[in-house]
Amino acid sequence: MKLVALAGGTGAAKFLRGLCRVIDPADLTIVGNTGDDVELWGLYISPDLDTVGYTLGGLIDETKGWGVKGDTFQCRTAMAALGNDTYFALGDQDLAVHIYRTEQLRGGKSLSEVTESLRNKWSVACRLLPMSDDRVATRIKTPGGWLAFQEYFVRERCKPEVLDVAYDGAERSHPGPGVIEAILAADAVIICPSNPVSSIGPILAVPGIREALDETRAKVSAISPIVGGGAVSGPAGDMMRAKGFEISPLGVAAAYTGFLDQLVIDYADEISCEALRARGVAPVVTESIMGTREREVALARAAIERLG
Amino acid sequence: MKLVALAGGTGAAKFLRGLCRVIDPADLTIVGNTGDDVELWGLYISPDLDTVGYTLGGLIDETKGWGVKGDTFQCRTAMAALGNDTYFALGDQDLAVHIYRTEQLRGGKSLSEVTESLRNKWSVACRLLPMSDDRVATRIKTPGGWLAFQEYFVRERCKPEVLDVAYDGAERSHPGPGVIEAILAADAVIICPSNPVSSIGPILAVPGIREALDETRAKVSAISPIVGGGAVSGPAGDMMRAKGFEISPLGVAAAYTGFLDQLVIDYADEISCEALRARGVAPVVTESIMGTREREVALARAAIERLG
Repeated sequence: MKLVALAGGTGAAKFLRGLCRVIDPADLTIVGNTGDDVELWGLYISPDLDTVGYTLGGLIDETKGWGVKGDTFQCRTAMAALGNDTYFALGDQDLAVHIYRTEQLRGGKSLSEVTESLRNKWSVACRLLPMSDDRVATRIKTPGGWLAFQEYFVRERCKPEVLDVAYDGAERSHPGPGVIEAILAADAVIICPSNPVSSIGPILAVPGIREALDETRAKVSAISPIVGGGAVSGPAGDMMRAKGFEISPLGVAAAYTGFLDQLVIDYADEISCEALRARGVAPVVTESIMGTREREVALARAAIERLG
Repeated sequence: MKLVALAGGTGAAKFLRGLCRVIDPADLTIVGNTGDDVELWGLYISPDLDTVGYTLGGLIDETKGWGVKGDTFQCRTAMAALGNDTYFALGDQDLAVHIYRTEQLRGGKSLSEVTESLRNKWSVACRLLPMSDDRVATRIKTPGGWLAFQEYFVRERCKPEVLDVAYDGAERSHPGPGVIEAILAADAVIICPSNPVSSIGPILAVPGIREALDETRAKVSAISPIVGGGAVSGPAGDMMRAKGFEISPLGVAAAYTGFLDQLVIDYADEISCEALRARGVAPVVTESIMGTREREVALARAAIERLG
């Protein structure tokens, strides 16, 4: 079974780690969000691709959910002493990836090419594709004005009210090499338990990707990141509200209207089953909080077992 | 007394640290060699400017003579794991300077401007000017072909035979802002105990600087980096031989022919005094090995006491 997974950062990465223990990773193509990529200190950073790569490569800092385990922050301290902005914490080992990526990009390599060489260095056995090699920048409208995603997410710690979310540059962007082909050739597409607006939204905003999801014969299965009326983690609730989606599995289904066949929801949301069925979405009810490696595997199993 | 010092790396930096305890640093302008600048991992590195800045700012690793004291090498290890060239050791704190400099240069700042902001961050009280804002690259001809300076110096550990030394780009370069003005306005110019060929040579190869040394009414005093028939440190001997200079204080004087008024030499080379005088260069004999802070100060004192 050929699988494509659309992925954000931490939640997606844990789910995908479980998935890679349930299927042959060689059958999996991950399409990663690059809407929250950021340039800091002149370095190009792809937080979601790195989080997925670090997690699948066994390098992730499990406690923080981002960065490299055991990493130090000497360079960051020195950058602060030089008067640089250091709200975005780059560890010393993590920095190597950003320095490498930036040098390769400046040398003319595409983000897809750099990501492919990184996932090989990380010994990640599945394919990892950026949603696009073009720059798409997720921006958050707050009462104080528009913020770049990482300004809102990291610098402001998601505190400002979210009035709107935009994907700058999306309309002129092209899907990354292999993305459309993978979706069209897939037996199933999985939308990871990621923020529908700021993690999956940018992917769907790349012209051609939503159309490919409509067109593919693959069943499309999402895992709801909303459990019991709120996001499992992060600002998904605030963003869904800003985009007019109900903060519930039904709201998640609404974000994926047109191509969603199945939604994996938590026992806490069993009440949504009927309404989902009424919208033509098959509910799969399971325990969806991934507190342990075993739960990651169990959730992955639940997400794919009716797709075969 | 307004002073200008032409400087290479480690030896110059120690001498200048002594000098700053003997004179008011506000009266000193250092013109630093950038001929061994190198781009590594897409980052622009100015080893000599950094060594002088770190030393005068109290950050230098005293044991190694380069880099930041107490620095770690986590990023370098991670860069090696990604398959990058890591012969040039960049510490995690040191890296901050190169990342900052590179970002500023890419943003359109000149090397002079970046150096000025760095020396302020480092609390260095004297002026520190790059010899040029243009790229001059010292290259070493070896039996195996031409090497970039750092390939010869760091990667090959000065082992290949030196057949010639060239300063690529020098003929098209311009003196850094303030360099000529400082030399012409100086009461004395000091040539630090640096390699005459690979540290001072690139500075003299920038069109206009040698002419300013000829023209200035300032006395020009050099400190011989050759003691007792060999270099105090580094490959100065090999390079002088390749350029046809005797490996002695006389060879040093020959490298500075036309503008040198005084040469500080070690007791070990007292025999050279007469020949120096015959060439019109006044010898100053002292203990020139800087093993302690006190020796740095004493050498600085000896270098300037007859210039007033």
